[in-house]
This record gives sequence, C-alpha cells and structure tokens, in this order.
Amino acid sequence: METRLESIDIAVDDQTIRGTVLSPAPVLPGIMFVHGWGGSQYHDLVRAREAAALGAVCLTFDLRGHEDTATQKETVSREQNLNDLLAAYDWLASQPNVDTSAIAVIGISYGGYLAALLTERRPVRWLALRSAAIYKDGAWDVPKLQLNADEDLHAYRRRPLRPEDNVALMAASRYRGDVLLVEAEKDDIVPPRTTENFRVAFSQANSLTSCVLADADHGLAEKSWQQAYTRHLLAWLSEMIVGTRGRQARALVQQNKERVKGMAASVSRIGD
Amino acid sequence: METRLESIDIAVDDQTIRGTVLSPAPVLPGIMFVHGWGGSQYHDLVRAREAAALGAVCLTFDLRGHEDTATQKETVSREQNLNDLLAAYDWLASQPNVDTSAIAVIGISYGGYLAALLTERRPVRWLALRSAAIYKDGAWDVPKLQLNADEDLHAYRRRPLRPEDNVALMAASRYRGDVLLVEAEKDDIVPPRTTENFRVAFSQANSLTSCVLADADHGLAEKSWQQAYTRHLLAWLSEMIVGTRGRQARALVQQNKERVKGMAASVSRIGD
Repeated sequence: METRLESIDIAVDDQTIRGTVLSPAPVLPGIMFVHGWGGSQYHDLVRAREAAALGAVCLTFDLRGHEDTATQKETVSREQNLNDLLAAYDWLASQPNVDTSAIAVIGISYGGYLAALLTERRPVRWLALRSAAIYKDGAWDVPKLQLNADEDLHAYRRRPLRPEDNVALMAASRYRGDVLLVEAEKDDIVPPRTTENFRVAFSQANSLTSCVLADADHGLAEKSWQQAYTRHLLAWLSEMIVGTRGRQARALVQQNKERVKGMAASVSRIGD
Repeated sequence: METRLESIDIAVDDQTIRGTVLSPAPVLPGIMFVHGWGGSQYHDLVRAREAAALGAVCLTFDLRGHEDTATQKETVSREQNLNDLLAAYDWLASQPNVDTSAIAVIGISYGGYLAALLTERRPVRWLALRSAAIYKDGAWDVPKLQLNADEDLHAYRRRPLRPEDNVALMAASRYRGDVLLVEAEKDDIVPPRTTENFRVAFSQANSLTSCVLADADHGLAEKSWQQAYTRHLLAWLSEMIVGTRGRQARALVQQNKERVKGMAASVSRIGD
C-alpha cells in the first residue's frame, strides 16, 4: 500500500507546532453494474448503494441505445455495447482509489452476456450473472435488435450448448474467478437451459454459487423478487469482498506475529 | 459508512455514455506519536510509515521547546505541552478520513507521561507507552526543565506509587482501552519500578501487553534495540487495528449470512 506524507502546522494557544501526517493511499474493490436490454443504470442504483457500503467503489452506466442515447436503439450493435463495457471498465480501473486486482462485474440478461465476453478482455475477479442471455455467434456488428427477430433464437436458448458452440460460453469456460449465477424460476425469455449451459461452461471458476428466485419472471415484476435478488447478490459480494479483506487482515497479523517470534522479550496479558 | 454519489460521462468511440459512481467515504484509524523530552517528530517517522502501511492515518509532531520552537526549551511547561497533545489530537480527529472511535496514542518517556494524561481528556482506544516517565504532581505550570532539577525525582521514580499518589497513574487507573507497555531493561532514567507502577495502575484496561527490551538503555542507543521496539510496537498495532478490522469483516459476513438464511433458494457450490 502506497503511503502519502504531508507537512502540516497545528495551532496551539497563540503559537503553531510542526507536524507530519502519513496516510495510506486507500484502494478499494471496484464493482461495475451492467443493465439489460431496455433497462438503465437507475435500476442498479439501490444495489450499487448497498455494495458501496461494503467498502467498494461502484459504477453504474447506461448502455448506448438507452436513456440519453435512446435514438440509437435501432442501430446499436453488440460490438458497440461491448465497447461501452470496455470504456466503463477502463474508467473504473483508472480511478486512483480502485484496486485493479479486485474488480467485480454484475450483469443482467443482455448485460450478463456482455459481461461474460468482457472477462476475456479485462481482468474480472468476481462475476455475477442474473438471467444471462445468449445470442448466436456471427453478425457481430448488426444492430442488436435484429438478433431478436431471429425466429430460432427462442429454440437456440433451449438447446444444450457447449463452450465451442458460443463465444459467451467459451468466455465462461476460460474464466477462473468467482461466479454467482442467479436464475428466475419462471423466466420464459432466458430459459433455465441457458443458465444451465453457463453453469456447465464455468468449469474452471474458482468458485460457483448459484441460486434460483422462486416463481420469479425474467424482469422480476414483483418487488419481493427484486428484494430476493438484492439479498442474494449482496450476500455473495459481502462474502467475496469482505471475506477477502478479512483473510488479508488475518494474514497480516500472522506475518507480524512471525516477525516478532523468538525475540528476547517477556509478553504477558491481563484481561482480554 | 457514508456513501458519495457522482454523475460522470464516459467516452466511448466518438460518443459519451452517462454513468454514476458511488463510493464509500473511507475512514481509517488514527495514530498519534508523542516524542520524549529532547526528541523530535523525526524519531517517530520510521514507525509512523510502517503504521500507515497497516491502513491508518499517522501523525507525528514536535512538542513546544523542540526543533522550530527550541528557544522555548527553558520555559515550556507540562501544561503547554499537554495543550500541544490536545491540539494535535483534535487536528487528527477532525480529519474526514479518520475514525474518531479508533485513535491510538504512542508516547515515549515524557511523551508517555503526557499521553497518559491525554486519556482523561480525549477518547483514546489504544495506548502504547515506552519508558513512560513520571513527575511529581503540583507546580503544574512551572517550566518542565525545572522538574528535573528536583534532587528527589530519581528516588521518587523508584518508589511504589498508587494511583492516588500521581495524576498520570490516576489517569492510567481509569483507562479502559488497550495498553502496550515497553520497558528498557537497563533504563536508569525511568527505572523498572516506574513501569511497574503504571502496570499495576492499568487495572481496568481492556488488555495489557508488556515487553522488556533486553539490555536496552533509556534512549535505545543501539540500532538493534530500536528495531526491537519497532517490531513490538507494530506487532501490537497490527493486532489491535488489523485484528479489529478482521473481526468487523467477519461480523459483516455473518450478518449477511443471517439475512439470507431461510430464503426460498437453492444454493450449491462447486470448487472453492
């Protein structure tokens, strides 16, 4: 951890005394939220606020084709939206208080598909996908909206697919970080088979946690489903981020204990 | 933990997308170093730098009568120097990134005496004293240098004293935080009896860790004695500060686990 040093003057009575303040450059985990097609960053703000309280820098953003750039809805492509993720990731990773080795990406539906692809292009330590969608390979730069016009897409998402069948599953199969998969039980847009294809593909993940939101539909129409998703996501983030910090803290204490071991000194302890 | 929210623009291709960044206001423990009579803040910088690396904001400063204000050496009183500690403490506690409930004070010799007195005037969670000196009560505003002219001071420091005999021991007897006492084995300025008087007085401390620097004199003339002191101090600070942080982190994980307990969801885990 880098340390900053600054000389200061402290007023006392009618005089001043000289002081020096040394402080660690604080670095925190970074968390990037990627909304789904038709969504916006505002849907992620509640969760981002809770995640920030865990001690992380959180970034939400609008994919092109949404909100301020809604006029591009008919034309924006997967390539362009993946560029949005790359730009947002690079913005987050360039913040001086963000630990670039501790970045989480949280994606929903189309945002989950893009998040999976991002893991092959940038270091992502933690990856949470809710109802991650899947699209056929090829036609990479045609407008995203046209992909949904494909009459076979619905059936494609219900087929067992292997990593070599799809670039998003291929990215998943190469991913070595920690994964959370959240599935909506009654999702008829991204069916359970798609999530299952992702689950099987994540064979090299450091850990894989998965959960099903009972009765929920793709968009989590009921408030209780949204709350359940938030609780699952925050519990997992907490375990990943806070748990890691706790392990680091314990390791640091241990290191220090080993450094003083064998020193000529008597150490006693009263009370607790 | 307070959260800040800021709207940003992210450049992508030749366009911009809108984003929102949420980050926790970072608060860290604060550590204040108080040098001894004839010392200066520069003697504390090595230890302050190591303590900052643990993730704390560290403050060193020059007591009046030293360095820039050396001309006041003959006149400065305990009252004035205690005011220096109060001013330095208040400066540290007013920093927006300092957790006012997690302040440590590290004092040496005369600085240890003043640090003990500070605990009755400001909240001090952790207190480390190396060869803390003791002076007779009364004559509170006479120049500090005159106290050393007292021919009985040497003998006074070798007497068993109770809290009611001395304001510094009284402060120690009321202190409820965690204490580190470091003694130099061959200290003929602050004899072992003085440290023993402090040890007995700290009967209400949350914990008391004490150690003896073998063969060392009052000023730690040998480099190896200085290094031993630094190692003991850092090990203790690490246990206090980092250990506390680890316990908080574990408590937070536990809280979150309890929140999701009993939710309608199947959770499985592959790998580690």
